[in-house]
Amino acid sequence: METFGSRLAAAVGRFGNLCVGIDPHPALLAAWGIPDSPAGVEQFSATVLEAVAGRVAIIKPQVALFERHGSQGMAALEHLLARSAESGVLTIADAKRGDIGSTMAGYADAWLRNGSALAADALTLSPYLGFESLRPALTVARENGRGVFVLALTSNPEGASVQHVGGEDSVARRIVQAAAAENDDGVPGSVGLVIGATAGDAVRQLRLDLSTLNGPILAPGVGAQGAGRQELRKTFARTSGIILPTSSREILSAGPTVAGLRRAVAATQHQVGPGNGAGPGTD
Amino acid sequence: METFGSRLAAAVGRFGNLCVGIDPHPALLAAWGIPDSPAGVEQFSATVLEAVAGRVAIIKPQVALFERHGSQGMAALEHLLARSAESGVLTIADAKRGDIGSTMAGYADAWLRNGSALAADALTLSPYLGFESLRPALTVARENGRGVFVLALTSNPEGASVQHVGGEDSVARRIVQAAAAENDDGVPGSVGLVIGATAGDAVRQLRLDLSTLNGPILAPGVGAQGAGRQELRKTFARTSGIILPTSSREILSAGPTVAGLRRAVAATQHQVGPGNGAGPGTD
Repeated sequence: METFGSRLAAAVGRFGNLCVGIDPHPALLAAWGIPDSPAGVEQFSATVLEAVAGRVAIIKPQVALFERHGSQGMAALEHLLARSAESGVLTIADAKRGDIGSTMAGYADAWLRNGSALAADALTLSPYLGFESLRPALTVARENGRGVFVLALTSNPEGASVQHVGGEDSVARRIVQAAAAENDDGVPGSVGLVIGATAGDAVRQLRLDLSTLNGPILAPGVGAQGAGRQELRKTFARTSGIILPTSSREILSAGPTVAGLRRAVAATQHQVGPGNGAGPGTD
Repeated sequence: METFGSRLAAAVGRFGNLCVGIDPHPALLAAWGIPDSPAGVEQFSATVLEAVAGRVAIIKPQVALFERHGSQGMAALEHLLARSAESGVLTIADAKRGDIGSTMAGYADAWLRNGSALAADALTLSPYLGFESLRPALTVARENGRGVFVLALTSNPEGASVQHVGGEDSVARRIVQAAAAENDDGVPGSVGLVIGATAGDAVRQLRLDLSTLNGPILAPGVGAQGAGRQELRKTFARTSGIILPTSSREILSAGPTVAGLRRAVAATQHQVGPGNGAGPGTD
């Protein structure tokens, strides 16, 4: 069974490293002229997938915006995940789940187990209960050739009140170290991190060592939120693994036509870097 | 519009402060002789609700164990939440959600807005992105007479690697202070915390001041995980607000009969305290 890390490396080698967020925000649905309903979310998702299939390695549906519509919204997400798999587009379910023990195992069953209706190629996780509390998801991901991205250092200003605490041995630094320890078997790792594309100053201030992670980094904050190639290079200067710069709003607001979305994808791919899969520090 | 804090105080005054977890674990479903399927989860939930309605103030469905079954599992949760509201049983959706900005607003819409299929009386939140990142949920909760319980200090051993970091100004202490600041208008607060029932040593070690919270505390870890009246009194000695000791497995394993569940509920109510709503430190 191929690992997520290997599948991701192959896809990025082919299509570049831009990750497109699928965020059916109410304001975007209105701008596209489609209803703020489960059917509208379904239509929105299908359009974005049509626009990006065969052009990007990976998409990141924002689970909250499907969950807004309850079980019917989650059914729309199931359809998107299934169609993405058919189209050869990898998926990161951006759910930021986190719990302990058999409850964490429940989330792992939902998102990372073969045969689950919500199975994605990878899942974002939130470690407030401790990195090790995420173990059931790490195990299920590995067993099913899937991956995880653990929140480490985000660029929203409030994040510092938790992530920066601890001085030399900060919360964020502990998460980075714990993730790196999971990826020490030589092959491209499947345990990734979420680090904001514009968090470069904090990466240096907290002395985060991203050089030994050997796993992918999901980097939200590209495009509308401001990061381009230079900012990415600054934040991830010493990173060896794959960086996935993620853009949502700037691309999605170029809809509702498939042609408009494709132009925005191409422009953002140009903006964030060479797309050679080796991260923005190597071109 | 009545606040969540007031509604909770009234319900606890009438039924006592035990919160019953609704956790459709695969092992429990098997023990009850019902299938591990959306229909099984639906049947399990309906049975527990029948057993506790009119006997407890509040229940806490564990969202991960509904989400395990995808959109159909979430539909079962919607039915449980709707039937609980009809039965006059308050609900805490234990989802531990957390994100930023308009994405956090999406979760708030899903769980805390009147008219949403998943609307619960309160929602658990995870603050890895900073307490203030939860603001959209705090706002929507207030506007809709609902509440939140923010993860602060848990009793799983891995929790310390995040929550205890920071010495005098620990992550957990910051969360407690931020929640207290939300409840400063004199009436029983609607911004609660999650603090493990057996976390007493850490409460003292981290010098958490629970005396000014003025909001409810959800305290998992009663029954099968070990805490009784004495442990609760130790952990929450200086707490003025309502403590909601929560038991799941010990009660649920007394099923599948309604009579068996009711006996277990009564035994646990006896075990955790007087149920007068004033917390375990005052009897």
